[in-house]
Amino acid sequence: MSTPQSARRRSRRPTPGATPGTLVVPQDAPRPKIHVIDYCPDRVDEKDLVSPDEVVPYLTDDTPSITWVDVQGLGDRAVLEALGRIFEIHPLALADVVNAPQRPKVEPYEKHLFIITRMSLVGRDGSLGTEQVSIFLGKGFVLTFQETAGDCLDPVRERLRRGAGIIRKAGADYLAYAVLDAIIDYYFPIVEDLGERIEDIEDEVVRHPARGTLAKIYALKRELLHVRRAIWPQRESLSALARDDSDLVGKEARVYLRDCYDHAIQLIDVIESLREVAASLLDVYLSSVANRTNEVMKVLTVVSTIFIPLTFLVGVYGMNFNTQKPGNMPELDWPYGYVACWIFMISVAVSLLVYFGRRGWLRSGESLPRERKPRRPPRA
Amino acid sequence: MSTPQSARRRSRRPTPGATPGTLVVPQDAPRPKIHVIDYCPDRVDEKDLVSPDEVVPYLTDDTPSITWVDVQGLGDRAVLEALGRIFEIHPLALADVVNAPQRPKVEPYEKHLFIITRMSLVGRDGSLGTEQVSIFLGKGFVLTFQETAGDCLDPVRERLRRGAGIIRKAGADYLAYAVLDAIIDYYFPIVEDLGERIEDIEDEVVRHPARGTLAKIYALKRELLHVRRAIWPQRESLSALARDDSDLVGKEARVYLRDCYDHAIQLIDVIESLREVAASLLDVYLSSVANRTNEVMKVLTVVSTIFIPLTFLVGVYGMNFNTQKPGNMPELDWPYGYVACWIFMISVAVSLLVYFGRRGWLRSGESLPRERKPRRPPRA
Amino acid sequence: MSTPQSARRRSRRPTPGATPGTLVVPQDAPRPKIHVIDYCPDRVDEKDLVSPDEVVPYLTDDTPSITWVDVQGLGDRAVLEALGRIFEIHPLALADVVNAPQRPKVEPYEKHLFIITRMSLVGRDGSLGTEQVSIFLGKGFVLTFQETAGDCLDPVRERLRRGAGIIRKAGADYLAYAVLDAIIDYYFPIVEDLGERIEDIEDEVVRHPARGTLAKIYALKRELLHVRRAIWPQRESLSALARDDSDLVGKEARVYLRDCYDHAIQLIDVIESLREVAASLLDVYLSSVANRTNEVMKVLTVVSTIFIPLTFLVGVYGMNFNTQKPGNMPELDWPYGYVACWIFMISVAVSLLVYFGRRGWLRSGESLPRERKPRRPPRA
Amino acid sequence: MSTPQSARRRSRRPTPGATPGTLVVPQDAPRPKIHVIDYCPDRVDEKDLVSPDEVVPYLTDDTPSITWVDVQGLGDRAVLEALGRIFEIHPLALADVVNAPQRPKVEPYEKHLFIITRMSLVGRDGSLGTEQVSIFLGKGFVLTFQETAGDCLDPVRERLRRGAGIIRKAGADYLAYAVLDAIIDYYFPIVEDLGERIEDIEDEVVRHPARGTLAKIYALKRELLHVRRAIWPQRESLSALARDDSDLVGKEARVYLRDCYDHAIQLIDVIESLREVAASLLDVYLSSVANRTNEVMKVLTVVSTIFIPLTFLVGVYGMNFNTQKPGNMPELDWPYGYVACWIFMISVAVSLLVYFGRRGWLRSGESLPRERKPRRPPRA
Amino acid sequence: MSTPQSARRRSRRPTPGATPGTLVVPQDAPRPKIHVIDYCPDRVDEKDLVSPDEVVPYLTDDTPSITWVDVQGLGDRAVLEALGRIFEIHPLALADVVNAPQRPKVEPYEKHLFIITRMSLVGRDGSLGTEQVSIFLGKGFVLTFQETAGDCLDPVRERLRRGAGIIRKAGADYLAYAVLDAIIDYYFPIVEDLGERIEDIEDEVVRHPARGTLAKIYALKRELLHVRRAIWPQRESLSALARDDSDLVGKEARVYLRDCYDHAIQLIDVIESLREVAASLLDVYLSSVANRTNEVMKVLTVVSTIFIPLTFLVGVYGMNFNTQKPGNMPELDWPYGYVACWIFMISVAVSLLVYFGRRGWLRSGESLPRERKPRRPPRA
Repeated sequence: MSTPQSARRRSRRPTPGATPGTLVVPQDAPRPKIHVIDYCPDRVDEKDLVSPDEVVPYLTDDTPSITWVDVQGLGDRAVLEALGRIFEIHPLALADVVNAPQRPKVEPYEKHLFIITRMSLVGRDGSLGTEQVSIFLGKGFVLTFQETAGDCLDPVRERLRRGAGIIRKAGADYLAYAVLDAIIDYYFPIVEDLGERIEDIEDEVVRHPARGTLAKIYALKRELLHVRRAIWPQRESLSALARDDSDLVGKEARVYLRDCYDHAIQLIDVIESLREVAASLLDVYLSSVANRTNEVMKVLTVVSTIFIPLTFLVGVYGMNFNTQKPGNMPELDWPYGYVACWIFMISVAVSLLVYFGRRGWLRSGESLPRERKPRRPPRA
Repeated sequence: MSTPQSARRRSRRPTPGATPGTLVVPQDAPRPKIHVIDYCPDRVDEKDLVSPDEVVPYLTDDTPSITWVDVQGLGDRAVLEALGRIFEIHPLALADVVNAPQRPKVEPYEKHLFIITRMSLVGRDGSLGTEQVSIFLGKGFVLTFQETAGDCLDPVRERLRRGAGIIRKAGADYLAYAVLDAIIDYYFPIVEDLGERIEDIEDEVVRHPARGTLAKIYALKRELLHVRRAIWPQRESLSALARDDSDLVGKEARVYLRDCYDHAIQLIDVIESLREVAASLLDVYLSSVANRTNEVMKVLTVVSTIFIPLTFLVGVYGMNFNTQKPGNMPELDWPYGYVACWIFMISVAVSLLVYFGRRGWLRSGESLPRERKPRRPPRA
Repeated sequence: MSTPQSARRRSRRPTPGATPGTLVVPQDAPRPKIHVIDYCPDRVDEKDLVSPDEVVPYLTDDTPSITWVDVQGLGDRAVLEALGRIFEIHPLALADVVNAPQRPKVEPYEKHLFIITRMSLVGRDGSLGTEQVSIFLGKGFVLTFQETAGDCLDPVRERLRRGAGIIRKAGADYLAYAVLDAIIDYYFPIVEDLGERIEDIEDEVVRHPARGTLAKIYALKRELLHVRRAIWPQRESLSALARDDSDLVGKEARVYLRDCYDHAIQLIDVIESLREVAASLLDVYLSSVANRTNEVMKVLTVVSTIFIPLTFLVGVYGMNFNTQKPGNMPELDWPYGYVACWIFMISVAVSLLVYFGRRGWLRSGESLPRERKPRRPPRA
Repeated sequence: MSTPQSARRRSRRPTPGATPGTLVVPQDAPRPKIHVIDYCPDRVDEKDLVSPDEVVPYLTDDTPSITWVDVQGLGDRAVLEALGRIFEIHPLALADVVNAPQRPKVEPYEKHLFIITRMSLVGRDGSLGTEQVSIFLGKGFVLTFQETAGDCLDPVRERLRRGAGIIRKAGADYLAYAVLDAIIDYYFPIVEDLGERIEDIEDEVVRHPARGTLAKIYALKRELLHVRRAIWPQRESLSALARDDSDLVGKEARVYLRDCYDHAIQLIDVIESLREVAASLLDVYLSSVANRTNEVMKVLTVVSTIFIPLTFLVGVYGMNFNTQKPGNMPELDWPYGYVACWIFMISVAVSLLVYFGRRGWLRSGESLPRERKPRRPPRA
Repeated sequence: MSTPQSARRRSRRPTPGATPGTLVVPQDAPRPKIHVIDYCPDRVDEKDLVSPDEVVPYLTDDTPSITWVDVQGLGDRAVLEALGRIFEIHPLALADVVNAPQRPKVEPYEKHLFIITRMSLVGRDGSLGTEQVSIFLGKGFVLTFQETAGDCLDPVRERLRRGAGIIRKAGADYLAYAVLDAIIDYYFPIVEDLGERIEDIEDEVVRHPARGTLAKIYALKRELLHVRRAIWPQRESLSALARDDSDLVGKEARVYLRDCYDHAIQLIDVIESLREVAASLLDVYLSSVANRTNEVMKVLTVVSTIFIPLTFLVGVYGMNFNTQKPGNMPELDWPYGYVACWIFMISVAVSLLVYFGRRGWLRSGESLPRERKPRRPPRA
């Protein structure tokens, strides 16, 4: 059964009781790669930074450019702390960046909004995972932290480079929205894939339920639960963002965030429907197996009920009573006794078959209903 | 199993991360047909437009006429964008028109209300589908977008032509209401049909559950889920409309919208009841199959338990022990030993039958209760 | 299975898209009978009206009498429209009167309150049905519409005639309350009857579940659902009435309506409990059937497992190997070989019985627990 | 199955439609016994009254004493009406006292608070019941009505007599609290007893589920439902009391009522947990029975599959083909044919056993897991 | 089945109706050990007290030090009452300390906040338990009561001793937070352990469900319920604390409490997911057992259906009809009749095998699906 990658990964939290705000960098975390995109309506600069301090000039220059600092990988405590100092991040917020998984949320701090969101990932083997993306939205900058390299944000970067749409004209709030929107929308193909898998399983369940079907349904339910847990709290945080009254999120950006919130609601709608269908599937599976057992039992019972009495009967005439003694098995000496015996046996069998036929035990129940015929004339 | 048409159709959304507001016109979408009905209390004009620009004169003329622009088919991006320009539609709203399915909702924009609703369709084969209808309600006009040609709004058009009721005297808000009301009310026959199908299945489930019954219950549950998902959010959006305090919806129209909202609530009530009944049916089905298996088992067990010992017994007297040697099967030489053997076997069988009869295993459980007898005298 | 009468009846709604407020009088609806009771503290007049216009004098006279106009049967559109004109009823309200079933609700109109409620009916055969009662409460009058003749309001009429309690001294609001109270309280015996039926089924389910039991549980669940759907929305509408701040409902009447609301809550409480019990019953039924199948299986297995090997054994000694040839069945020629064979077979059977006894397969599980013994001393 | 006493008792309500406030005294109700405790910090008077009028002097005397009038038994309409007059009780409230069961609630009247609560009773046979206690809290008096004699309030009376704690110094509100607190706390041992019964059933369910187990689980679920229905609404009414802003409940008493409210919440917490466990038990029971049936089936199948083919084989050599004719059963004349036959049969049986062993059908599944071994070192 | 320790322990409440605030010290409770840590930024004093009165100097000294008084064990009423006097604790609060388990809650008193929380304990055998920790947060002091010696607070004490982080610089509110945070975070490893156990069970359930699996699932569900009941109310109380507007909790501490609240929410999220998975597991288990029974039945039915008719046939030719009489079993005298008989029997067996093969009864269903193949290319 394919268990989502992130479910097996142990959470990376400090020992209970440790000083709050402690940064516990996981052993196996990839080293951070810092990528900066600095843009204004008429220009885009892009650079991979070696040291976090290189980010300072982008923030302090006089031009009104927007700076997107994207950090992929959390494997170096010094780098994270340096960024924390540069962007004046509260220790608890920085700890939340590292101690993934956190629940998606929005927290207002004095100089920035802190947004935790969860991005879906599809592994090389098609397995589903998620990773935490932490977004700091401040005046003129967006700082994002991702757990690993690789993401679904390339279209956003491409739009920045090409200057498509209003993205280079709008502010940092629009950039944060664009990132969130790309993350949310990336769930759609995943959820559609789950929907397709349900449809594949459906037919199997009703027509020929096998042991493997059960494993498939169960795996599907777990993945739905996983995706649901990732999206559900984002709904709240997007709603909070769209209603946010800080001056970090402008009025126009809020219209866009409302649209993004609508997408989250739609995803939840679809997921809840799929969950309900998946729950039904398990019940249908059980009923279907019970049905098949019933059919197997009927075959056994019909065959046994017909032949066991007959076998008894032929057993009777196989007894070795001494026919010389009076009263002992005179039938054996009747002429055509054998034929009479067969006639009797055949009539017993036929009677039983008729009886079973009347009870409907001879119908195999195999035939499934064809497409429902229309009851109403189709609309013109 | 008939899966609703629209469930299989892939949603037509832009690539995740694309510029928000991008219009992605689906390949297979039918080309738009634009139909205008322009009316005032004493006159109705109707026309099929070739180009979207032809709509401008209807909007800008001095007469206080109401204009209903109905667009069926979304397969031409240029036409949609032209209409967007003419009616000053926000790009996100226009994207929602195209990127169906969206969740039914009401969104206030500066110059109009944007209403997304979902219309039920019954295919030629009786299968159930839905399509998105997007309504823009502005001063003096209603603009509707439908995914395909053909709808349930002909009675509304007919009322406009005939001038029945107050429809030609009332404003654009009443027209929007009339469209919504026709869409909502069109669900009633569909839901009643689902109710009838449940009643058909009910008897089958309790009396002779077959494999096909299971498929029917499952298909029914899915269709109920489908209809529910279509109506549930309309309840919210109708409630929002009826409470709307913009000047686009007048006081009198709100009374009518409240009535329409009541209909949506009623539909939801009925659907929830049907869903509960359908859920019960699945449980009853499983119990009914278990019951039948139990009855099959009882037959097998009664027959086996009676005949297997007897077969053993006749087997005993079929053994070939040398009766010349002492102690070897003297019974075989008894006079009337054969008769004694039969008497013994019959008494064993009768004892077992009596035993099974006492345990109630011989009752077939086939008889179902007749109509419950009245316990209280009927009311006078 | 007795399906509630009203569930089968098709709803009587106009074609979707028809002019709202259209009165579609059902073909089979009984013709209206109009009954007027006009009363003040010291006098009661009662009359069956032939034409709706006869009601006008009662309303326009100078005396401060209260007039109760009760219309039973909705089968004449002209009569309904005449009453609509006389009492100045909004077309949508009048349509709601006719297009039953509507959801119970309270709607304030300018000159009256419009209350839709649902009255339970018990058919001659004990089957359960409901009908819609529409109440218009205005200044000095109460106008009620019932779908058919016959109701549970005779005690109210009797109280008016006898002048029992404060009913003749109080206003129209108290009369409306009295009608609602009688309708709500009439559900109590029905719900108690359902409770008794559950208790009848309970014992059956655990001790000897039959196919008919399943049908009974299912029918019960449906009736509970039916009653629940009838009462649930009345709770809201009664609460709305008791909190109503129009001057049509006086302060004293509100105290009485609160009491009536309490009764509705109590009914819902009981129904929810019964629903939960009924849901449990279905699970218990399934478990009970599974248990019985298990017991049947044990009997089959014990009998088969004991006799099948023995039958094999006697089969062995029934083989016809030529005992003249060496090594062929020397046992057959042993003295007392037959006795030895029996001893061996009996010891096999006894061993198996002991084994099954130890596994507990010989206990029938038939014995049910007697009344639970007290664990705590009874209170003094 | 022990059904709670009060569940079988029919509710004692007036005919539907009767004048509201009608007192319908049940036939079998015990006659009222009136007991008065009149106390102030330094004195306690106690008396059994013969007539309700004797209560008047206690209420009208000049001393600031608190009077507790406790009425046990509701079987005399005249007495109840006399008390109603003396304490100025609204007819609807008095009707609620008699028409038990009412839902626990708090209702403010002009001169007193009317509190309905539900007291648990444990019958002599350990069965669980409840009775309604109606409390009127006024200035300087508490009037309680109980359905039958005997209650759980003796510790409160004792505290009054002994002057323990602050009870004699505090006001009537504290007395009402003390009564409510005693009633709520009396549920704790009952709920704990239910918890113990669940633990008794748990082991039975997993290890050797019997028919009786099912009846026990079902009875338990019903009793939990019963207790829940009794406590749940008390939570609301206690919360309402603790927040009450009338001058009948003082600030200090509210602190105590909040504590009592906490106890009700705790009870509900425990009951909900028990309900969930009981629901699980039913599922586990079903699974456990299915498991056992599976094991029984395996035994039957292993035995049948091994011996049925062998029995066929020995049947073959029991056939009476004429060995004189060519080709007819030459094996019977082989030397050591019998031995060869045994060798063949034994090898078939062993092969099948090996096959079944590999499929795991020979493991009995009887062995249950021992206590889970610690995975983490115990805390120091 | 390992039942959590604390579930079996009876609650230690006073008799119902006893004076509220009565301290009922349980017989087996360990005697209290009082430990004091008194600290300010530059100094830490630690001491085990013999008598509660020794605590007074710490509280009344002039230095602005913070005092943490930790009482482990509640077995001495005098000590508790002395502390109650010293810290001016309300009798009801003190009673709540002793009458564990109480529901976690926050109650404001005049001079302190009273916080009840629940700490998880892992026994030496790995079994899960919880104990109540009562916290009084006042000006300059924190007073904690624990039921037994030993806790998860050593890291907090160590931080105090080492002066790590801001703990010695912050106030009493931060200390209370640190205690709560350590208690909440200690649930994470426990919940992760439960998650690991679910993953262990998962594979077992689908591939080879045994009786022990059922017991494991049930035990798991109970433990999840136990943990959930412990954490759920802490969420509310932490939220109340973080929103508290008393001057006992400072603004900075509230930021930390919000973080702690987030942790509680996360725990609840994970627990709810695990509960849902565990519920699925039970359904999957049942389906899996039903599936296996079906497979066992198929084997039995195939073997029986093939051999029972053949055994009948060989029984026929084992009959002893007198072949001298006409019509009696002429087949026995046919040359090669035996061979013909075998050919007939083999063709019957083969036909049945082909039939069963076509119905799919010969596939064992043993093969489970391998890891799902990727359907989409992995992200670059």
